[in-house]
Amino acid sequence: MTSKAQVAKWQGEALKLLHQAGIVVTEAEKTRIEIAEFGLGQYQQSGLAILVYVNTNRCCAKELMMLPGQTCPEHRHPAVGGQPGKEETFRCRWGKVYLYVPGPRTPNPKAKPPIRRENTYTVGHEVLLNPGDQYTLQPDTLHWFQAGPKGAVVSEFSTRSTDENDIFTDQDIRRTE
Amino acid sequence: MTSKAQVAKWQGEALKLLHQAGIVVTEAEKTRIEIAEFGLGQYQQSGLAILVYVNTNRCCAKELMMLPGQTCPEHRHPAVGGQPGKEETFRCRWGKVYLYVPGPRTPNPKAKPPIRRENTYTVGHEVLLNPGDQYTLQPDTLHWFQAGPKGAVVSEFSTRSTDENDIFTDQDIRRTE
Repeated sequence: MTSKAQVAKWQGEALKLLHQAGIVVTEAEKTRIEIAEFGLGQYQQSGLAILVYVNTNRCCAKELMMLPGQTCPEHRHPAVGGQPGKEETFRCRWGKVYLYVPGPRTPNPKAKPPIRRENTYTVGHEVLLNPGDQYTLQPDTLHWFQAGPKGAVVSEFSTRSTDENDIFTDQDIRRTE
Repeated sequence: MTSKAQVAKWQGEALKLLHQAGIVVTEAEKTRIEIAEFGLGQYQQSGLAILVYVNTNRCCAKELMMLPGQTCPEHRHPAVGGQPGKEETFRCRWGKVYLYVPGPRTPNPKAKPPIRRENTYTVGHEVLLNPGDQYTLQPDTLHWFQAGPKGAVVSEFSTRSTDENDIFTDQDIRRTE
């Protein structure tokens, strides 16, 4: 369990990234930036900060703030209750992101999975996202991504977001606590 | 009909606004910024520039770039083919936007409808959006908005966008030509 002080510190790091990306948020939004550490207790390695702008039954928009080299672990968004899974578009706003999806494995990939968790990363087709670049993921597609050496800010545009339905390859992960 | 040269000039103005907002777009995106003048031929009065990032069957994200005092005319997004109408969230990124929706008419509103078209503006409840502020519109809700004195950049997060189904109060408007 991460202390409140530690969460506040990471929220501060996320705010710095937003500021560098030129993205303005309200005072109320600053206090509700989610620090997602996936139950692994290694936030700087496996984690990301999330600001949800809107999440209705029909659509969702968020900013994702990532520290240098930080990884969002491999997962997919399955169909739930007869509805197709979440469809999402990642648009890099600042920094650099290495996104991995199904497809031919990229030789000499830029990102390496977090140490001692390598076997929970199975897809290896690399998509490089610089600012202004984006990629749309179809529902139920395995993916993971890692920030470049300066960190990254990524806008996510999607259908409704329901974290509790996400399926992670790493069985130690707990998305919601 | 607006000349190609004039469209290119307005695209250039839209790019300046994106730059001021700190939003990075690709070279390919620069060439496909839509200059929407609603068939009225008075772009600086009634119009806006639109960059669609993604528009699938399920969700959509855009940037809207508006010149100082420019107005997006009153319209609504009705249900189509048994599906509820478009739901949209406007998030101000830069500048200032005055949004008008149904509700008690705001005394001394900041924006005035374009001259000689006043009778095509019927809702008058003002919502002021500064950078970081946002507002979610339910489907089929009449709305119009005007940029403040420096112009504005607004992110729109929504369900699928189908311009041809929009219903404008001003019967002279042709959304798609």
